[in-house]
Amino acid sequence: MLEQLKLEVYEANMALPKYGLVTFTWGNVSGFDKETNCFVIKPSGVAYEQLRPEDMVVVNMNGEKVEGDLKYSSDTATHLALYKSFPGIGGIVHTHSPWATSWAQAKRDIPCYGTTHADYFYGRIPCARNLTPEEIAEDYEGNTGVVIIETFAQYQLNPIHVPGVLCSNHGPFSWGKDALEAVHNAVVLEELAKMAAQTEMIGKNPVELPREQLDKHFLRKHGENAYYGQ
Amino acid sequence: MLEQLKLEVYEANMALPKYGLVTFTWGNVSGFDKETNCFVIKPSGVAYEQLRPEDMVVVNMNGEKVEGDLKYSSDTATHLALYKSFPGIGGIVHTHSPWATSWAQAKRDIPCYGTTHADYFYGRIPCARNLTPEEIAEDYEGNTGVVIIETFAQYQLNPIHVPGVLCSNHGPFSWGKDALEAVHNAVVLEELAKMAAQTEMIGKNPVELPREQLDKHFLRKHGENAYYGQ
Amino acid sequence: MLEQLKLEVYEANMALPKYGLVTFTWGNVSGFDKETNCFVIKPSGVAYEQLRPEDMVVVNMNGEKVEGDLKYSSDTATHLALYKSFPGIGGIVHTHSPWATSWAQAKRDIPCYGTTHADYFYGRIPCARNLTPEEIAEDYEGNTGVVIIETFAQYQLNPIHVPGVLCSNHGPFSWGKDALEAVHNAVVLEELAKMAAQTEMIGKNPVELPREQLDKHFLRKHGENAYYGQ
Amino acid sequence: MLEQLKLEVYEANMALPKYGLVTFTWGNVSGFDKETNCFVIKPSGVAYEQLRPEDMVVVNMNGEKVEGDLKYSSDTATHLALYKSFPGIGGIVHTHSPWATSWAQAKRDIPCYGTTHADYFYGRIPCARNLTPEEIAEDYEGNTGVVIIETFAQYQLNPIHVPGVLCSNHGPFSWGKDALEAVHNAVVLEELAKMAAQTEMIGKNPVELPREQLDKHFLRKHGENAYYGQ
Repeated sequence: MLEQLKLEVYEANMALPKYGLVTFTWGNVSGFDKETNCFVIKPSGVAYEQLRPEDMVVVNMNGEKVEGDLKYSSDTATHLALYKSFPGIGGIVHTHSPWATSWAQAKRDIPCYGTTHADYFYGRIPCARNLTPEEIAEDYEGNTGVVIIETFAQYQLNPIHVPGVLCSNHGPFSWGKDALEAVHNAVVLEELAKMAAQTEMIGKNPVELPREQLDKHFLRKHGENAYYGQ
Repeated sequence: MLEQLKLEVYEANMALPKYGLVTFTWGNVSGFDKETNCFVIKPSGVAYEQLRPEDMVVVNMNGEKVEGDLKYSSDTATHLALYKSFPGIGGIVHTHSPWATSWAQAKRDIPCYGTTHADYFYGRIPCARNLTPEEIAEDYEGNTGVVIIETFAQYQLNPIHVPGVLCSNHGPFSWGKDALEAVHNAVVLEELAKMAAQTEMIGKNPVELPREQLDKHFLRKHGENAYYGQ
Repeated sequence: MLEQLKLEVYEANMALPKYGLVTFTWGNVSGFDKETNCFVIKPSGVAYEQLRPEDMVVVNMNGEKVEGDLKYSSDTATHLALYKSFPGIGGIVHTHSPWATSWAQAKRDIPCYGTTHADYFYGRIPCARNLTPEEIAEDYEGNTGVVIIETFAQYQLNPIHVPGVLCSNHGPFSWGKDALEAVHNAVVLEELAKMAAQTEMIGKNPVELPREQLDKHFLRKHGENAYYGQ
Repeated sequence: MLEQLKLEVYEANMALPKYGLVTFTWGNVSGFDKETNCFVIKPSGVAYEQLRPEDMVVVNMNGEKVEGDLKYSSDTATHLALYKSFPGIGGIVHTHSPWATSWAQAKRDIPCYGTTHADYFYGRIPCARNLTPEEIAEDYEGNTGVVIIETFAQYQLNPIHVPGVLCSNHGPFSWGKDALEAVHNAVVLEELAKMAAQTEMIGKNPVELPREQLDKHFLRKHGENAYYGQ
């Protein structure tokens, strides 16, 4: 089942090493199918060089394996939680890409310092809190999703407008309308994380992008009045 | 029309990913034709892998499309403003190359710390101010050009001697006698931005290149007494 | 003798330049054979492009060459000391990979700032002290091993749980169950060193990973209750 | 004449872009011939992709072109000054490699922070002073050599033991027994410059390598008691 989506999710997974976002197996991508209400995800611990489209695992909204010979990624519960709470997203990526992970390890939101950021993320990229010892013991991967959702609720963020997040001391998740757009946003997030760190290295107290420029850049690319392409 | 220039502008655009200056479609190059008083520019939002010479768009000095099946780059109005005000330039490049963009996000001029810089830019590379809310609302891309021109007037800079600029919170523009030289200067600008940031990381309060060394380096490569080649 | 192990150690050595861990000949890998109680190591000063599997040198537990036409690596005495004192390790790598070496030059342990670190190293990666003038004069390479072993005893670390170390003003050593896992851990160590430096650049006073998250990540991948694969 | 040396110098020049040390034409290599007391150097301003062995220019100890269709590199006078004053060197390299240039722009000697440095350079890598306006006006390239030689005399350094230097606000020169060793040392210098900057980023006040470790590392690789190879 879902052969076309498996191929797409396979290709999206293979794009992670191509874009330099992962070392070894440090990442995973999934893609969602609205018809069957299932998602397709990378199997657990398989090296990218050995990965094949048919290795992808199909999972339903109860977190049960529907099809696949291999175990699904250990991060499946996080993906499941996000698909349940963020309607409209069709693909999710998790990596340990170095600059985004460094911000996550510093437990800081990534400020919006420029128009490159504003073209994709409508304001700062939030950093979700650490899990409590109880949340870790109970359901670590599932509660990672819960804490992300809590962060978006607290900050009153629309996940369609802010397609990514950092998890404290861990790393980034990003998403999009499908698996390939989620990978695209993972590449962007890493580039923004690098440039924000360099901006703070060069400027002593850099200020964030003025509100009117943030609106201009985000809204010329997104929503009903979009017109932009470089 | 302008088939030769289209090919040149196509090749200059393709050089941007080759030199590592762009992620996805984050950049554009144009080239000017003195005969027809038109310029050729990259179409809007096309991926570099799919770009073809015949996709290039021809634009006149009123900013009207003269030839081309696709929409011209959204930054066309900025290119137009620069061609109008900076006589003698024949090519323009815009990128979000990471080090130059980081200086732009820190809203700082790039100081001239060395002879590598002096070989190409006759003094600091200026950072133009942010646009006002009114300038953004009225004509964002056109006014981006206006603010660049204002900066060169204020600082009394000759655009032939300082072939590039940073736009606050945005990124760099560079130019040259043709599209390929503009790309060459974009590569140089990124390298200078990187080395200037590293210089400030290594030296606590580095000083700029002495005036006599700036003159020696710039003038042995440019103008009527030039003699230099490494 | 040990033709299979020679091939494996050869391939592990060739993986060092492939992963960008070495410049010129700045590194070496060895692999241990339980049957014969010997180890196979890279010969001294041979360029990677010219290295062949049959060039590998076989050394016994007295540090004597058992087989091989070439001189063994000058760091052989360090490898020997580690194999003697750290039972259960089957491969050792030494490199001058740039970020790990920079931490070693700053004489600092690498703090555990995130789950990427916790997935492989159960807490900070220690930095062993400098050798005394007497230790250098007596047996520099052998005493480099002695000081590493002393560090693990002092900090009460299990070398299976912390598969690597920094040597002050020198560089990293890492190990694993075989030569390839030792190389894998060398790649991880370099990535962790880079991200820890970036974390301190971004956060002013970053705190280490909470204990419960360290336990969760290390123990879901290692030991009898392991279940994790990305 | 000197066909073999021309080929060697050509290959050494081509190694600069291969090792990532040069952008465009920002570098040059020469090689010395003891028999004829001439040296062979890269021609001026030729792109690396178009360079051919037969383009190399032969220059004598009076700085006169002895053979070659093209103009010699503009830095020829610096090479000439070094060959005259530093007997025993057989090859010279000049680049604008980014980390070494950043130290030169910060006008700082590169401290010896580790054994990687001590394996090649017997102590700090000095940074020569800026030229005076008179020295620039009189003979810029020749006086660049004079100031390097002055620095080695002042610091009482043996150029065989310290095979490289930084020129304030300019960039590095390195040398060796022939052109290829000079390139080798240029690669090492760039790597040491990078790691020294990172060491100061990680450690707040890092201290230099203890004297006994400097002696051990330099002397186990150089001089009559050398025995080392990794």
